[in-house]
Amino acid sequence: MSDQITSRSENYSQWYQDLVVKADLAENSAVRGCMVIKPNGYAIWEKMQQHLDKMFKDTGHVNAYFPLFIPKSFFSKEASHVEGFAKECAVVTHYRLKNDPNGKGIIVDEDAKLEEELIVRPTSETIIWNTYRGWVQSYRDLPILVNQWANVVRWEMRTRLFLRTTEFLWQEGHTAHATSQEAIEEAQKMLEVYTTFSEDILAIPVLKGTKTANERFAGALDTYCIEALMQDGKALQAGTSHFLGQNFAKAFDVKFTSKEGKQEFVWATSWGVSTRLMGALIMSHSDDDGLVLPPRLAPIQVVIVPIYKNEEQLNLVSEQALKIKKALEAKGVSVKFDSRDTHKPGWKFAEYELKGVPIRIAIGPRDVENGTVEVARRDTKEKNIYQIIDLEIKIEHILNQIQDNIFKKAQARLEASTYHADSWEEFIDILDNKGGFIYAHWDGTTETELKIKEETKATIRCIPLDNKLEEGKCIFTGNPSIQRVVFARAY
Amino acid sequence: MSDQITSRSENYSQWYQDLVVKADLAENSAVRGCMVIKPNGYAIWEKMQQHLDKMFKDTGHVNAYFPLFIPKSFFSKEASHVEGFAKECAVVTHYRLKNDPNGKGIIVDEDAKLEEELIVRPTSETIIWNTYRGWVQSYRDLPILVNQWANVVRWEMRTRLFLRTTEFLWQEGHTAHATSQEAIEEAQKMLEVYTTFSEDILAIPVLKGTKTANERFAGALDTYCIEALMQDGKALQAGTSHFLGQNFAKAFDVKFTSKEGKQEFVWATSWGVSTRLMGALIMSHSDDDGLVLPPRLAPIQVVIVPIYKNEEQLNLVSEQALKIKKALEAKGVSVKFDSRDTHKPGWKFAEYELKGVPIRIAIGPRDVENGTVEVARRDTKEKNIYQIIDLEIKIEHILNQIQDNIFKKAQARLEASTYHADSWEEFIDILDNKGGFIYAHWDGTTETELKIKEETKATIRCIPLDNKLEEGKCIFTGNPSIQRVVFARAY
Repeated sequence: MSDQITSRSENYSQWYQDLVVKADLAENSAVRGCMVIKPNGYAIWEKMQQHLDKMFKDTGHVNAYFPLFIPKSFFSKEASHVEGFAKECAVVTHYRLKNDPNGKGIIVDEDAKLEEELIVRPTSETIIWNTYRGWVQSYRDLPILVNQWANVVRWEMRTRLFLRTTEFLWQEGHTAHATSQEAIEEAQKMLEVYTTFSEDILAIPVLKGTKTANERFAGALDTYCIEALMQDGKALQAGTSHFLGQNFAKAFDVKFTSKEGKQEFVWATSWGVSTRLMGALIMSHSDDDGLVLPPRLAPIQVVIVPIYKNEEQLNLVSEQALKIKKALEAKGVSVKFDSRDTHKPGWKFAEYELKGVPIRIAIGPRDVENGTVEVARRDTKEKNIYQIIDLEIKIEHILNQIQDNIFKKAQARLEASTYHADSWEEFIDILDNKGGFIYAHWDGTTETELKIKEETKATIRCIPLDNKLEEGKCIFTGNPSIQRVVFARAY
Repeated sequence: MSDQITSRSENYSQWYQDLVVKADLAENSAVRGCMVIKPNGYAIWEKMQQHLDKMFKDTGHVNAYFPLFIPKSFFSKEASHVEGFAKECAVVTHYRLKNDPNGKGIIVDEDAKLEEELIVRPTSETIIWNTYRGWVQSYRDLPILVNQWANVVRWEMRTRLFLRTTEFLWQEGHTAHATSQEAIEEAQKMLEVYTTFSEDILAIPVLKGTKTANERFAGALDTYCIEALMQDGKALQAGTSHFLGQNFAKAFDVKFTSKEGKQEFVWATSWGVSTRLMGALIMSHSDDDGLVLPPRLAPIQVVIVPIYKNEEQLNLVSEQALKIKKALEAKGVSVKFDSRDTHKPGWKFAEYELKGVPIRIAIGPRDVENGTVEVARRDTKEKNIYQIIDLEIKIEHILNQIQDNIFKKAQARLEASTYHADSWEEFIDILDNKGGFIYAHWDGTTETELKIKEETKATIRCIPLDNKLEEGKCIFTGNPSIQRVVFARAY
């Protein structure tokens, strides 16, 4: 067990913080609430981007880029959007600095005050729909299937690396459609893309559902979401896809001439995932020794560590190691051969465990003699001796096994942490002593939802898709209910 | 000739503006000076990113991400940097908005004023070197070879799409080294990377050189640059690579313990290219019919347009077209088959010329019968009939020819537009009547450089690398000079 990292049982929150910093994923910056994503962390984010970007393009989307700044007045145009978004934002008021006449560095030039303040985008619906007005005249111009990779800023008072930061990186899809039906199908399709990405790439099982009116995106008619469950029993929203109806088209006057020659407002969706997924990834799989990465996301999938006592042995071992490296790379496996003489093998073993490299191959002079290597799995800590013959095929197979195993482990945990509560006492007991997803009856009112949140900090994570209708009584008010919804405390 | 676009001879500047807008590359946004990069434009930028990112990684660099915001005081820490940069910037002064008590939308919440203003990064040396202080203790921590893909903001009064915008996208490399020599080699190596990228991928020939003291990056000891020449005879700086000495290490107290156990300041470089390259690309190759794209950057390399009179013919032609598409895609060629029945072939021909698709294949029922297709090249407008047998091999070959031809054409233009001036009159005559690069003697003083700029708007683009020393007299002052430098009017 790593002595650098607090154990999960001792302090889960400190474990997370230690891991992010010690594994060189990210750190706090000199700017309150903004993080530096370090090369090790960014390499994982790049892998996420590559997978997602391909999935977006395979479903017909193209990328574009819209301004960082949004005129303040744009936010007032969509009534519910302004309530949900425009408040905690970075506001640009001036466009020039000047030398302090008293010689104390530089000061804001009051002569360079903007007529209208600019907001650093917290999300881009308003500036994008203002742009789409010029792009759409006829049904022939639809659909617009655009995605943007960008940074966004939401002023946060309490921040945590990756999970909640003032600036974060994300993608935001913004699509425009001729019919309501088509927009709803798009929003659902992107929820499926996120689900596939989360389960097949991140190895994180998720619940799919819709948000209650209270938890919906500001300006949406319906918010679809995927919800994941962390090791401490808290939920984490891993992606959302919104059906926005005609709200933004009406706010920004985006109309089209239909096939029938009528002027109609355009239908919209938006959908996004962010660097928050880095937090979900870490908290889903990692352990007290450090990061555990699913092979499909690991920037380095295999590390080869030579064991040697002198230069002659190093040369002997290196020759064999480089052959293995080459054979693996020919299979598309990313490999690092760490022959640094500044650190001992034991130190390297701990280091690559901390950084989450899925497979470690150790090779010494005896191995070369025997035509073997030692292969250690990060996820199970198993070590096995393998013959070098066809090693690349075995490694490929083990990488798939690891990907699979990590997902199944997370899935088993999710299932074991999913409960039904039929009374308030039971509900509280599960929340306080077990954590996890709780299926419980709710009377369908925002009032009750808010009271439950106030008393327990638990929120309705989602109403599962294809939810089974079942008569019952609200755990809080006892009023009649037609279905169970999923509660949890959440990040 | 496209009737949508002003011709170059009529108005070069309007031609550029028309082309960018009509080819759907970018447009102005509702935010002064900020552009929207449309999907067609962004797809080209993505190609640039992919090529560059691979080249950076092949030379040992990794990506990371640093905050968008920089505390105002950071800019004052490096004396010459503040002079060059901190003035025309977007300044964040508040972090909250609130409802206007008079019910007129939203206003800035004066209670949410920042103690220290934040600057939206115009470049990231300061925040990065403040971060590096925590990353470097010993020579073992060096070099740091980091690149960042990001948006930056420099408040510009007069903007032009891609060429000069308030917000733009770029990459900025920031490296840290133990020795001066190693940092200088890094700065030079990245200039070579930019040169290779510009010539082999963008098909833009460049002059390599160093900037004069006056044109250097604020905070640099030496700025290496590549300079391209546009069709109107104006120069465009296509990339810069800076040797920053120990300036930022001293400003942010970044020291390391050397192998000999001494405390020393770290040596730095930074280097960047931006969406400005989109402007260079357009102005280097395009013509009065629209965009001309080098195949290595073209998101669509081949478009297939079916020629047909009825559905039966369309089916016949489509079958053949899809076979060709498949064979080309198997070779890694990106192909679009445009079978829309909403537009006639002639319209489509003009459209894909406008958008710069390198090769157009037209195929009709007669072609299917004969086993032929018509292949048109965007660069030369040549049309030829080819047998369908092994068409993919021929197309691959033609794509390489186009890439080569576009570069050679630009290179011939650059050579034809490169002059030597030995007197002031000659200098003025070339500037006013020909444009281009002018090799001329200069006395080496900033004073003379600024006077020449004031009188002619020409600047010293660079002192070419490996410049030939040659005694002469400054064209402006007549004072002795040891070498010719390269002057031009520039974007």
